[in-house]
Amino acid sequence: MTRRIHVIGIGAGDPDHVTAQAVTALNDTQVFFAMDKGAQKDDLVALRREICRRFIREPGYRFVALPDPPRAKDGDYRQAVADWHAARARMWADAITAELGPDGVGAFLAWGDPSLYDSTLRILETVAGQVDIDYDVIPGVTAIQALTARHRIPLNDVGEPVLITTGRQLREHGLAGSAVVMLDADCSFLTCPASTRIWWGAYLGTPHEILMSGTVGEIGDEIARLRADARARHGWIMDTYLLRSAH
Amino acid sequence: MTRRIHVIGIGAGDPDHVTAQAVTALNDTQVFFAMDKGAQKDDLVALRREICRRFIREPGYRFVALPDPPRAKDGDYRQAVADWHAARARMWADAITAELGPDGVGAFLAWGDPSLYDSTLRILETVAGQVDIDYDVIPGVTAIQALTARHRIPLNDVGEPVLITTGRQLREHGLAGSAVVMLDADCSFLTCPASTRIWWGAYLGTPHEILMSGTVGEIGDEIARLRADARARHGWIMDTYLLRSAH
Repeated sequence: MTRRIHVIGIGAGDPDHVTAQAVTALNDTQVFFAMDKGAQKDDLVALRREICRRFIREPGYRFVALPDPPRAKDGDYRQAVADWHAARARMWADAITAELGPDGVGAFLAWGDPSLYDSTLRILETVAGQVDIDYDVIPGVTAIQALTARHRIPLNDVGEPVLITTGRQLREHGLAGSAVVMLDADCSFLTCPASTRIWWGAYLGTPHEILMSGTVGEIGDEIARLRADARARHGWIMDTYLLRSAH
Repeated sequence: MTRRIHVIGIGAGDPDHVTAQAVTALNDTQVFFAMDKGAQKDDLVALRREICRRFIREPGYRFVALPDPPRAKDGDYRQAVADWHAARARMWADAITAELGPDGVGAFLAWGDPSLYDSTLRILETVAGQVDIDYDVIPGVTAIQALTARHRIPLNDVGEPVLITTGRQLREHGLAGSAVVMLDADCSFLTCPASTRIWWGAYLGTPHEILMSGTVGEIGDEIARLRADARARHGWIMDTYLLRSAH
């Protein structure tokens, strides 16, 4: 008798990104645990509920909201993240024990894929050291694949590497070759040479999707303007972009 | 009246990786164009046919095999790839014109995602300059997501980048931080320091799947042995791995 948890990648925003494997896991789940915060909340909750409504055949499931412990804004970034993960793990362990029967099945839904800039797997590993759970991971289409599909471009140059990175890392280390940038609230592409090519996308796979491509010199400022407008209009934004240095 | 082409990512090997969007595109397709070569042929053809059998509701489709022009083994790698792409583009343009009616729908199925170390999109861009076609791209779960899901690990360290690269690049440039290595026939991880952590997977998502994790020093030789045995037994292998430098 072990509680089971699915960590399900549900794609970048389009319910059609959901895989057959994810559909099976969704239908196996009694309780969906969800962390929701900030202005993104309403749209993303609605999207998750739409996915459940569409793919779950016998709707006996329920949602349980998990409170989000505060994250220190100052001090060491890694330590702040570690403290926040530990506090979350305690809350998750309590919630799993309280909400699932001894052989119950719960799930966490992850946008994109659970492996990429997502803390669910790290926290669950800690939870598994505190309570008896068995968990598996269902891969999903990431925003990176959604971005390249909508722009109809390869991610890599022939035989060449691609870096997956963050806005902060791009600002600190600059660009060499090709890089996909995620988690960038600061339009860090504006720090790249004007000749750098950029393929940008926001709200990928959703009705609000915006796509732009060109060079940073030609369209960088326009993207920054579009991004600020869209963020103000929707109250939140999720965007990502591929950069390639000029040869 | 324009011929339409879907480029469909069908996941890393498990038919359950197929997305709802891919299912729609599969059902929209009259002719599946396929390039098949070498010893992988039989298993991969069988897997593709299984996907079509399972997800296509009215089986009126057919497969058309595309001949694979020879690729120069000597000389400049990029030039050889460019020549090979040009020869393929001519063959594809002819096949699309011959096999599809003027408003017909064809498709190419790509393992993983069409954006990653796959030539289909580059060739189709050239084809689109020669014949009147309209094409779209359906994203798919890559071997990278399948690898991290089966090992239940994050791809990135917190806030850190990850390089997607090839065996050749790893041997030439070494490892810094985290890297996923694809297209490595030479166990290039053996060139990394013994303390490097490795999460390796072969035939991901298929009944032949093999997973190994540890440090290069502890299990590097064993992976090399397992890989050679499996390759001999099956006649082909597809594998990938994540490396992380010891801190």
